[in-house]
Amino acid sequence: MPESKTILSVELGDRSYPIYIGSNLLDQEDILLPHIPGNSALIVSNETVAPLYLNKVKALLKSKRVETIILPDGEKFKNLEVLNTIFDALLSHRLDRNTTIIALGGGVVGDMAGFAAASYQRGVHLVQIPTTLLSQVDSSVGGKTGVNHALGKNMIGAFYQPRAVIADTSTLNTLDDRELSAGLAEVIKYGLIRHADFFEWIKINIDQLLAKHPETLLHAIKISCQTKAEIVAADEKESGQRALLNLGHTFGHAIETGMGYGEWLHGEAVGAGMCMAARMSSSLGWIQEAQVQDTINLMQQAKLPTMAPEAMTTEQFLELMSVDKKVLDGVLRLVLLKDIGQAVVTDNYTQKQLAEAIKASQPA
Amino acid sequence: MPESKTILSVELGDRSYPIYIGSNLLDQEDILLPHIPGNSALIVSNETVAPLYLNKVKALLKSKRVETIILPDGEKFKNLEVLNTIFDALLSHRLDRNTTIIALGGGVVGDMAGFAAASYQRGVHLVQIPTTLLSQVDSSVGGKTGVNHALGKNMIGAFYQPRAVIADTSTLNTLDDRELSAGLAEVIKYGLIRHADFFEWIKINIDQLLAKHPETLLHAIKISCQTKAEIVAADEKESGQRALLNLGHTFGHAIETGMGYGEWLHGEAVGAGMCMAARMSSSLGWIQEAQVQDTINLMQQAKLPTMAPEAMTTEQFLELMSVDKKVLDGVLRLVLLKDIGQAVVTDNYTQKQLAEAIKASQPA
Repeated sequence: MPESKTILSVELGDRSYPIYIGSNLLDQEDILLPHIPGNSALIVSNETVAPLYLNKVKALLKSKRVETIILPDGEKFKNLEVLNTIFDALLSHRLDRNTTIIALGGGVVGDMAGFAAASYQRGVHLVQIPTTLLSQVDSSVGGKTGVNHALGKNMIGAFYQPRAVIADTSTLNTLDDRELSAGLAEVIKYGLIRHADFFEWIKINIDQLLAKHPETLLHAIKISCQTKAEIVAADEKESGQRALLNLGHTFGHAIETGMGYGEWLHGEAVGAGMCMAARMSSSLGWIQEAQVQDTINLMQQAKLPTMAPEAMTTEQFLELMSVDKKVLDGVLRLVLLKDIGQAVVTDNYTQKQLAEAIKASQPA
Repeated sequence: MPESKTILSVELGDRSYPIYIGSNLLDQEDILLPHIPGNSALIVSNETVAPLYLNKVKALLKSKRVETIILPDGEKFKNLEVLNTIFDALLSHRLDRNTTIIALGGGVVGDMAGFAAASYQRGVHLVQIPTTLLSQVDSSVGGKTGVNHALGKNMIGAFYQPRAVIADTSTLNTLDDRELSAGLAEVIKYGLIRHADFFEWIKINIDQLLAKHPETLLHAIKISCQTKAEIVAADEKESGQRALLNLGHTFGHAIETGMGYGEWLHGEAVGAGMCMAARMSSSLGWIQEAQVQDTINLMQQAKLPTMAPEAMTTEQFLELMSVDKKVLDGVLRLVLLKDIGQAVVTDNYTQKQLAEAIKASQPA
């Protein structure tokens, strides 16, 4: 089989790390191993991914002591209680400070394994092996880790960078259509916030992306990771421009929390959230109605929701959004659009305008 | 009342912070306030300390929105479950990323509030107001935060530095004798690991320390904090010499975990642990029997235990010590003594020697 890979770098001084992107990377012996410094590792995976890829990863680590923990699959398990089962595994296997936690799975596995790595013995090594489109283009890169709290999404966590990210695009072959679309939401996001030309490219190639055409997917993943790597290198801990990566996320997190974690996939909630942000940007006079329609059309083509859930009220949105991490001294800053390809963080809107924007996104 | 204070500094570049030490600091309006950057704060305290000092601290923050959470008192509550009640409080009060968590209490409160500050929204501001001798001389300084796991002490946590430490020595007036002795264990530790002359000073002044003589206590706290600040500045994340601060702690943590958290106070377990380390250092031929006796005598004078608990077997010790954070690729490194005032980290001992050292510390 052909073995080709791209290597990007997240530039963070002595904590810089590579992102490997390509097909059949989990069949190559020389990629993972050099990023395991000690003689032991714990693979954290879930009950969907483990049957598909766990043995492959284990086979790459024959020279190490390898332990495994399999989590239940889904966002509703991304909490402190399930996190503690990772600590149970680490301690019952007596894994020490020089161990490496390997996250093998999608965003939920990566976020939890990452936070476990940040916290176990105050920090052990971490490698991300994302197996969904969403985690390959977004969550495995940049060091955001954490779990949900009943009152808010991703409210407990740490910035903690991996030693490497290995995105084997062959794993996307087993991804179901709903998860694929959820990942495309984050791909579209990079176009909307920073790259008008990439947005145009996605419009042209959306059918090939949905058909999992390998070269097309590879390009989308590369551009997404490159964009994220640049932004994270410039602002690791989100004191500035990194917040732009949250386009659609304040609305989206409210949907995820309000509907119950896991009802809507993260990417689905973000897709609807970006449509809500686009509508609000237009109602503030910042973008044209045609650009809103352009955004909504692409989201529809990607088979993503474009409206808020019927079950949620405006009041519920406002309540849930008030605990967003972008609230600063009581004021919620939103990521909105000044153009396709140009997002801004702003508190330059009234509560009434926000409420109206939510209403405009509710099903009649 | 006389108001005098010493200010030390923990030098960590742009994360450097002051340690204020002195009497009646909680009556002075200009100390705490400048270290609260946002307009809100959450005071984390416990049911013992809050009735004594909560209103004092609140009175210093009249210009801020101040919320409070009162934890149950004791090491057995230092776990993920109780930690989550801090997150509940933060979220139900909608405290944002610019909020400051203020730890008002002893080591347990400081460790948990600190880890909550490290993890809430991936990091909010933290100020430590330690109210016990142990927390004033040790745990409030240096950024180690965390909670216990059933299988190991302090196994889940983060390195997370506060913006300031305010050690009001007047709060020690309400400290009971057992807690005072527990704090003295960590004071003696600084003498043993680094300062033979300070060890001699403690021997001379032990009765005054036990009688809470203000000037004597103040001196002990200053030297302790100064020593800790130097070590932390040189090795924040314990890749080297910071491990010396763990003299007696590997034995001690095993006692705390083995007996059930809270049965032995941390300082009591560390006191007995340092005697065990001294006996082992002597049996390895590194220090003289007279120096062991000197150590044990001072621990006795400080009203600290010098033997392992009767209820624990050697096997139990070895089992619990095998998950210590100083285990590296399967080998447990111990902090032992080459002299009074000179500790080293070493794996230069046999498992048999360790077992014999434990046996030598067990009551006949």
